[in-house]
Amino acid sequence: MAVLQRTGMGLALLRHKAFHCGQHQSCAAASTLNFQDLEVILTKTPQPKPKDNELLFGHAFTDHMLTIDWSAKRGWDKPCIHPVQELRIHPAAKVLHYATELFEGMKGYRCVDGKIRLFRPMENMKRMRRTAERAALPDFDGGELLRLIKKLITVDSDWVPRSEKCSLYIRPTYIATEPALGVSKSTEAKLFVLLSPVGPYFHTGFKPVTLLADPRFVRAWPGSCGPFKMGANYAPTIQVQDHAMREMGCQQVLWLFGDDHKLTEVGTMNLFMYWINDQGEEELVTPPLHGLILPGVTRKSLLELSHQWNEFKVAERDITMKEVIRGLKENRVMEMFGAGTACVVCPIEKILYQGQILEIPTMTKAKLTNRFFNHLTDIQYGRIPHSWMELVSEDTEVVANVTASRMY
Amino acid sequence: MAVLQRTGMGLALLRHKAFHCGQHQSCAAASTLNFQDLEVILTKTPQPKPKDNELLFGHAFTDHMLTIDWSAKRGWDKPCIHPVQELRIHPAAKVLHYATELFEGMKGYRCVDGKIRLFRPMENMKRMRRTAERAALPDFDGGELLRLIKKLITVDSDWVPRSEKCSLYIRPTYIATEPALGVSKSTEAKLFVLLSPVGPYFHTGFKPVTLLADPRFVRAWPGSCGPFKMGANYAPTIQVQDHAMREMGCQQVLWLFGDDHKLTEVGTMNLFMYWINDQGEEELVTPPLHGLILPGVTRKSLLELSHQWNEFKVAERDITMKEVIRGLKENRVMEMFGAGTACVVCPIEKILYQGQILEIPTMTKAKLTNRFFNHLTDIQYGRIPHSWMELVSEDTEVVANVTASRMY
Repeated sequence: MAVLQRTGMGLALLRHKAFHCGQHQSCAAASTLNFQDLEVILTKTPQPKPKDNELLFGHAFTDHMLTIDWSAKRGWDKPCIHPVQELRIHPAAKVLHYATELFEGMKGYRCVDGKIRLFRPMENMKRMRRTAERAALPDFDGGELLRLIKKLITVDSDWVPRSEKCSLYIRPTYIATEPALGVSKSTEAKLFVLLSPVGPYFHTGFKPVTLLADPRFVRAWPGSCGPFKMGANYAPTIQVQDHAMREMGCQQVLWLFGDDHKLTEVGTMNLFMYWINDQGEEELVTPPLHGLILPGVTRKSLLELSHQWNEFKVAERDITMKEVIRGLKENRVMEMFGAGTACVVCPIEKILYQGQILEIPTMTKAKLTNRFFNHLTDIQYGRIPHSWMELVSEDTEVVANVTASRMY
Repeated sequence: MAVLQRTGMGLALLRHKAFHCGQHQSCAAASTLNFQDLEVILTKTPQPKPKDNELLFGHAFTDHMLTIDWSAKRGWDKPCIHPVQELRIHPAAKVLHYATELFEGMKGYRCVDGKIRLFRPMENMKRMRRTAERAALPDFDGGELLRLIKKLITVDSDWVPRSEKCSLYIRPTYIATEPALGVSKSTEAKLFVLLSPVGPYFHTGFKPVTLLADPRFVRAWPGSCGPFKMGANYAPTIQVQDHAMREMGCQQVLWLFGDDHKLTEVGTMNLFMYWINDQGEEELVTPPLHGLILPGVTRKSLLELSHQWNEFKVAERDITMKEVIRGLKENRVMEMFGAGTACVVCPIEKILYQGQILEIPTMTKAKLTNRFFNHLTDIQYGRIPHSWMELVSEDTEVVANVTASRMY
């Protein structure tokens, strides 16, 4: 069913004893996560590609995925790029019982010069390693994983949309697979990467959101895993998000924290407010990285851009609902928006809080929201060259039946 | 490879259109979880049973498992009892990314009359349904699931240890399987049940534990999913548990909460203290069900027994570290122990708290700890008949090639 192309196999066998990777007979073991050990198995039944305007987030996947198995005994098995297929997981695998799992979300873009580039991918690799430590999953070389991800994208490069409204969503995932009950470190794990072509978050201009801010629902707590991208942070939010949508007519949840109702995150995005602060200064403010929020790559980028622009004050500090309400009453709040990989920025127009609807004037100007969106997408699609973008080399030879030495 | 025994198939097909269950070709769909739709596929290669004295918790599984698939379109598929096998899960399944998953832990016992009984199984079914609601997974009929679990145990009844020190651990698990990224309710789910013969928690008398009580680590908080048996409650504890064991020489974590360092849970157990309270009364005290702790079935049973005995005061209220330290100084603390399905009760002898080691005199008498252990195991192994125990009828005919009408 598949063309098997081996590389570096001889070398790998010299260094390590051969083992079965559990997924493919051909995969022998390596003790560290190593790009050079990669094997590529190409599909013989490529799937039809969805049209750009029919793309739903995270529903379509490219033809191939990357899988790397780890075990305490053998270390990292050889990485495999292979056709997307169901995983075979023992029903006692720890991931299914104790949520020992984490993921990353990052994007690749077809730039105006036709080349594919990634947006600050090492930021995701670094965060993934920090999360792995928190989740008690084994560490790995982030640079090697990024090389493997780039190769996967090269193999499926035809799937990267050619529209400046679309992109390739990249989903590294890392799960504990030891088939034993008991809440403890897993002796087996699986790291895999899916690619999903995604359409524009906003089809026709910005669509602002209404938020439910109900202090009964709490996303994270000091000492929780809130600042890490573990699955455990998301499961408890689904019922609340569903309540917000179905019963309260809100699109997202504004997660509050503490007796003073600090604003923390918006759905799965970081939160920003652009306003005239109590001292009368024009200020962009966002909650600090003190353990309650996820350190977003888009958040970091917007802060860095703002500092470079040096046109308004930039602050990372707590924002309370009391401050927001007073700011609104005194017409000092100009814009509020979420920031994340999926949308870049997402304007907020209303907050439902303690029975009242707070109207946020974001959309009357959306001056900064628009500016961030345009500037970041200019960078991402290569309209403005920027060191944040990393090239994925498009070696089309990988899809032909070439020799190993030419392939890598 | 397997003997397929069909039952009620004609009836099922009259009521419902046939669908593929995704796991077995023979499984047709039913819209509600229904015992009558059960199909049994028996293994032709039964595994050797481990010896009682070699049993590790959660490492050995019986020959068969129960699987029931659900989808928003079709409702519940036909339940299947089939040989234990790897699950086939799409790599984008929500369970692997957002930890949309939950489980239960319950036990079956080979009683002194040779019959197999379950300990308060409907308590687990009720909690599982509450957890499903919190996890945004579909509801089901707990009575029907229990009937299916009993049938599974009947099929694998030879696996239920014949020792009054061993038991059969039962692990219902419920995961979201929709293959789509995006933090939202899943349109597909899988409920499965594993059985695992387990040895004695204490091989040679009680082995008391030392606890790490570090207020930097927080298991649950108001508004979290702490009182529900979701996987998301366990993933963040593994790193902390590992730190307690490897770096601090403690066997378990004592989870504290709040500025006053309330005691909440011990590892994955509920916590009890037996002491002379500030009013000079003999008192059994345990933290209340106010959203920070899991409502344990053993916890509930110990409270009910204590109320029946009516020999000492029983209180469900917050306990702070300050109270414990004062009680210890004044020689008023008699026993502290964890309570859970795995061990019944687990005595605590030391707590490492803010640089000091608190010595708990539990083991000098272990009067109440011992009494609870003996009384509950007397009930569980049928030495004292009790309404808490539910019979699993051992219909040995199920393993023979009998007709459907005789099987059910």
